[in-house]
Amino acid sequence: MKPSVGWIGTGVMGESMARHLLSEGYPMGIYTRTPAKAEPLLKDGAEWFENPRALARHHDVIISIVGYPHDVEEIYRGESGVLSCPAEERQCQIAIDMTTSRPSLAASLYQEGSQQGLSFLDAPVSGGDVGAKNGSLSIMVGGAEETFHKVAPIFEVLGGQIKFQGAAGSGQHTKMVNQTIIASTMIGMCEGLIYANRSGLNPEVVLESVSGGAAGSWSLTNLAPRILRGDMDPGFFVEHFVKDMEIALQECERMGIQLQGLTLAKELYEAVIQSGGGKLGTQALFDAVDSMSRRDSVE
Amino acid sequence: MKPSVGWIGTGVMGESMARHLLSEGYPMGIYTRTPAKAEPLLKDGAEWFENPRALARHHDVIISIVGYPHDVEEIYRGESGVLSCPAEERQCQIAIDMTTSRPSLAASLYQEGSQQGLSFLDAPVSGGDVGAKNGSLSIMVGGAEETFHKVAPIFEVLGGQIKFQGAAGSGQHTKMVNQTIIASTMIGMCEGLIYANRSGLNPEVVLESVSGGAAGSWSLTNLAPRILRGDMDPGFFVEHFVKDMEIALQECERMGIQLQGLTLAKELYEAVIQSGGGKLGTQALFDAVDSMSRRDSVE
Repeated sequence: MKPSVGWIGTGVMGESMARHLLSEGYPMGIYTRTPAKAEPLLKDGAEWFENPRALARHHDVIISIVGYPHDVEEIYRGESGVLSCPAEERQCQIAIDMTTSRPSLAASLYQEGSQQGLSFLDAPVSGGDVGAKNGSLSIMVGGAEETFHKVAPIFEVLGGQIKFQGAAGSGQHTKMVNQTIIASTMIGMCEGLIYANRSGLNPEVVLESVSGGAAGSWSLTNLAPRILRGDMDPGFFVEHFVKDMEIALQECERMGIQLQGLTLAKELYEAVIQSGGGKLGTQALFDAVDSMSRRDSVE
Repeated sequence: MKPSVGWIGTGVMGESMARHLLSEGYPMGIYTRTPAKAEPLLKDGAEWFENPRALARHHDVIISIVGYPHDVEEIYRGESGVLSCPAEERQCQIAIDMTTSRPSLAASLYQEGSQQGLSFLDAPVSGGDVGAKNGSLSIMVGGAEETFHKVAPIFEVLGGQIKFQGAAGSGQHTKMVNQTIIASTMIGMCEGLIYANRSGLNPEVVLESVSGGAAGSWSLTNLAPRILRGDMDPGFFVEHFVKDMEIALQECERMGIQLQGLTLAKELYEAVIQSGGGKLGTQALFDAVDSMSRRDSVE
């Protein structure tokens, strides 16, 4: 029999992911901060619960995917959080946080959970709305390896590339690597398109020359065409990416290293937010880099 | 009958490319600054000529692929250069420079050539030693479109993705876009690996999680594994990449724009050269970024 899942968070990613589990026959309870957002899943057979504690009381596994580390803290440590449920009343023995969040928070939730008989996995994902929809996410997992193997069938419903990365926090660290790589890759893509525009080339024909070779990247293939169409709709929100880069930079500070590309990317993305683009897709970096390239040349 | 080709430059790229044409039956003469480097091709049936002028006198098409813009100038404008051959004695009516060089030099060679009945194409390539070896290069072409069509069969022997990008210099501008994109992508890759190392992850397992998703790139797939093996052998020389970034930044200055990612990449790559790594492959950026990340944190 499939374990029952208490699902928390029904945003762009969470809703698609929860639906995959529902359609695979996993019994599911739902709690989410904005109840209206849970309705499509309730219609598909999920049951509403009033808070994370109630979910933990009645389900085998908790899965959370929300916005920010403070949301994660509220879900687990809050007054009605998962950890507020006395161990003897709690059916749930495994909790999986799939939010991109602080590695140190993941490590401390793992510790706190262990003391109460709850095995906590950090399992952030990469692959965006499309990966969530077609179940092809990359899932990067930290925590107890034994627990990872127990819930592997759940991960296999949600993702295509599933890797155990090590002790608690390692999933989050791996996601930070992912975001660090993307940060400067986005700068390169935007600067290349700006150069193409300014030098009088046809950027669409340029992309045909450069996308398949040594300059090629997921960003160039998937986001550059959106930029050329002026389509800044979010696959991944600017404000969430800035949150991720902030976490990565805080971790770098803790580790005693400075990453100049990541620092530059965060500054450029903050300019996107300052000009009101926090809810745009990450490809909106183009406009900020474009303005910046002109502003600096005037100074 | 296939046109005869006067080939100039037998470096890492040039030798493989010339051999493809030879084995397709193109009659070939060769000149190169270091005669010993031409020997393998002479054994394969090419004929030695004493300078670019002599090549131009006896061949239908000149193709050059050398190191730096000043080498290109010497080949075309030098005392024994292609343009020193009087038009009435010159069999050659088309010259193709495949060196990555200055767009403005390409435009002026096009002008000078036109006045003497020589149609000049700029046609730099991307795809590295591997692309040259297996004939899968991306070729980005600027100049007269009519000339491009005339020599298309030659390009098809050398490359897989062949695009006419516009007026003289447009091939070089497209290559600058390519290099600008790569520059920051390389920073992102190196910083991601540094983060992975410092946070105690196993970088090889991390690559399995991140290479196939939104952080994916040609660099990550092809160069990150070399970095992890400590293999800094050149697919593409650091010193050539720095030359390309210098050209791109000079063009940016001319166009009145500043690209911060490209500027940062050039600084970081200059640190590689300063520590003696000019003849290493571009993946040697890793060591420079790694040192820099520690140095800055001490200051």
